[in-house]
Amino acid sequence: MTESSSGGDLSQLRRLNSLAVITVLREEPALTLTEVSRRTGLSRASTEDVVRELLELGWVAVVPAAAGAVGRPARRFRFRADAGRVLGVDIGGHKVLALVADLDGAVQYTARVAVTPSMGRRERLAALDRAVADALAGAGLTADGVWAVGAATTGLVDGTGRVMLSEALPEWTGVDVAAHLRRLVGGPVLVENDSKLAALAESWRGVARYAKDVVVILAGLRTGTGLIIDGKLHRGFGNAAGEIGALPASGWIRAQDHLTAWSDADPTADRDSAVAAVFEAARAGDRRAAAVIRRYVRDVAVGTAALVLTLDPELVVLGGGFSRSADLIVEPLRRELDRWCLRTPEVRVSEFGDEGVALGALRLALDHVDRELREYAGLGSPERFSRGSRRSGAVAVTPPATTS
Amino acid sequence: MTESSSGGDLSQLRRLNSLAVITVLREEPALTLTEVSRRTGLSRASTEDVVRELLELGWVAVVPAAAGAVGRPARRFRFRADAGRVLGVDIGGHKVLALVADLDGAVQYTARVAVTPSMGRRERLAALDRAVADALAGAGLTADGVWAVGAATTGLVDGTGRVMLSEALPEWTGVDVAAHLRRLVGGPVLVENDSKLAALAESWRGVARYAKDVVVILAGLRTGTGLIIDGKLHRGFGNAAGEIGALPASGWIRAQDHLTAWSDADPTADRDSAVAAVFEAARAGDRRAAAVIRRYVRDVAVGTAALVLTLDPELVVLGGGFSRSADLIVEPLRRELDRWCLRTPEVRVSEFGDEGVALGALRLALDHVDRELREYAGLGSPERFSRGSRRSGAVAVTPPATTS
Repeated sequence: MTESSSGGDLSQLRRLNSLAVITVLREEPALTLTEVSRRTGLSRASTEDVVRELLELGWVAVVPAAAGAVGRPARRFRFRADAGRVLGVDIGGHKVLALVADLDGAVQYTARVAVTPSMGRRERLAALDRAVADALAGAGLTADGVWAVGAATTGLVDGTGRVMLSEALPEWTGVDVAAHLRRLVGGPVLVENDSKLAALAESWRGVARYAKDVVVILAGLRTGTGLIIDGKLHRGFGNAAGEIGALPASGWIRAQDHLTAWSDADPTADRDSAVAAVFEAARAGDRRAAAVIRRYVRDVAVGTAALVLTLDPELVVLGGGFSRSADLIVEPLRRELDRWCLRTPEVRVSEFGDEGVALGALRLALDHVDRELREYAGLGSPERFSRGSRRSGAVAVTPPATTS
Repeated sequence: MTESSSGGDLSQLRRLNSLAVITVLREEPALTLTEVSRRTGLSRASTEDVVRELLELGWVAVVPAAAGAVGRPARRFRFRADAGRVLGVDIGGHKVLALVADLDGAVQYTARVAVTPSMGRRERLAALDRAVADALAGAGLTADGVWAVGAATTGLVDGTGRVMLSEALPEWTGVDVAAHLRRLVGGPVLVENDSKLAALAESWRGVARYAKDVVVILAGLRTGTGLIIDGKLHRGFGNAAGEIGALPASGWIRAQDHLTAWSDADPTADRDSAVAAVFEAARAGDRRAAAVIRRYVRDVAVGTAALVLTLDPELVVLGGGFSRSADLIVEPLRRELDRWCLRTPEVRVSEFGDEGVALGALRLALDHVDRELREYAGLGSPERFSRGSRRSGAVAVTPPATTS
């Protein structure tokens, strides 16, 4: 193909047509030219032009005809989800996780760097740099190849991607996560609280994917929550929803102290090891360990019951580090909820292990790309398109490098 | 006008056209025939036919030309909100309130019947009968003239309009409020929990009308809450949202006991008089009374802080019976919220006195009428229209007598 058709010389109309075709193809597994033409409202000739170009650019592929097809069936085309890549990052207390995925959210590379809760700001950001570099290298991407980045962090996050308040990690309040990531990758960067993103992941492709109103509880050395209301992540007026754990009456401030104070644990062990020891002992039949876990669950259940009574969700999802010991937590939690709630919802365990938050970050990035694509395909303004055309790479239609 | 144009002989198409015109006219204060034609997509001739008929039927009126208009301006038409009436009923512990309003929600008659919290089911239902009869008589309506009824009751309400659980009123659990009202009035009956409807009223035309996320606190001998999330009343999966007060840790179960136990009150007085005495004494400068109110507010604030931390609303609205003493409650409440919340939202006092719940019930009825009108104007099915045509009265297009 010639340079003139791949870069800034594509006419505005042609770009809009391309986007209309991409949007239509994303919604279906495979369409014929006739179907694309009907759904976009473009003429047959324009449809053919656009699809040919998208084939050359790598946005669209031909679907192989089914074996045994009689005669010569019309060729079918599909959207190529691997035309673009997004990055999802979870910056946590114990690990930094970076996932690279295609535009359908299929994860293609996972990079993991271990950190500790006591690490300072610089060390944690260095681990983030390493995780992002590993992920890009593993996926064979340059910094420019990332269309959008979603990032999860503990604490309250403001609209610009800065941590307003973090009580869990030292020196973390005030860190401008968005600015830091923007120095590492090319695309727009979106930052959100980790519990909120865990909820987003459950609602996207987790155990909550068929529910409209969901309370996700993150059980770990801190207890957190993310809320899905009417199918959408609830952020709140100041992006501070889900912070009920800050209230002493919720029981969440002291809940994990029952576990970390487990007397049989090695006194020199850190809090994580202490908790692991309780769960292990309880599984081995230790009654005192079982009683400690009951006290933990009783406290977690108070705040959870407050959320359930407030929102009356269809589903409560148990996630977070302790959800690996869900076998010891879920039944007593159900019993406690029965005690307090007028209608106890179903309680299910997350299936994401410790990758839920990173998956939510990925979804945040994908939501951004989808929104941009929809806006482009609808009523794109000339400025947007001229900005988009300045991007490097072989793809004519890409989201502009704006940040939200 | 002839009978054939007012009743069941109107063709399906003609009805749809009428509804399209009504919908368009409801959205604007006044439109010319040309404007109606353009917005409905009907031909000029059809538009003229429909508008003439709606004029005869009383759905539409001519807007008088502005004084001093030059030449002969095109006639402008408006929707007549008084073409139909809705009823809103609040069945409470102390009163039954019945409001009649036009289709724009302008209240035209208010009937009030005093009841007591200790009254049994039969007495309370008899008071309801009286309030509804008074309201209809006062507004000059027959039972058939009511297009929809919204009713508020304490307790949990199921989807059919039956009280599943009421702890506030004796013999009230199990009452089928919808069935009872259906024997009194002709239109569809919708029943909802009183706190939820108070929230709906604040969001409709109260102090929360410009806010998207709102927590409404009903302060009284019981504390209740209704939630507006993303501009909509949040009901929950089993219609049981807003019941955080059932959790002891919320502080709401015992909060009012501080007030009702006020030692200086006449020991033979009922709980309401005891509370009135505390507020009066505090206003007169009694420090012990002020301390009692502080203890009350401290307890109410715990549950309120749980709601605020969970949802991060833009606004908290204080309503309910005690909001008449907001001068003594709001400032200490703000201070307590500051103590617990990461971001204390604005706190405002309801302006509805004790009519907020009934206004919410009215809005529930209006929402039903609006929904039906929209559905009709969109894709009405023949059954719906043939059912509508059986209704009495001079109006050809009315919501069918279905119940939801």
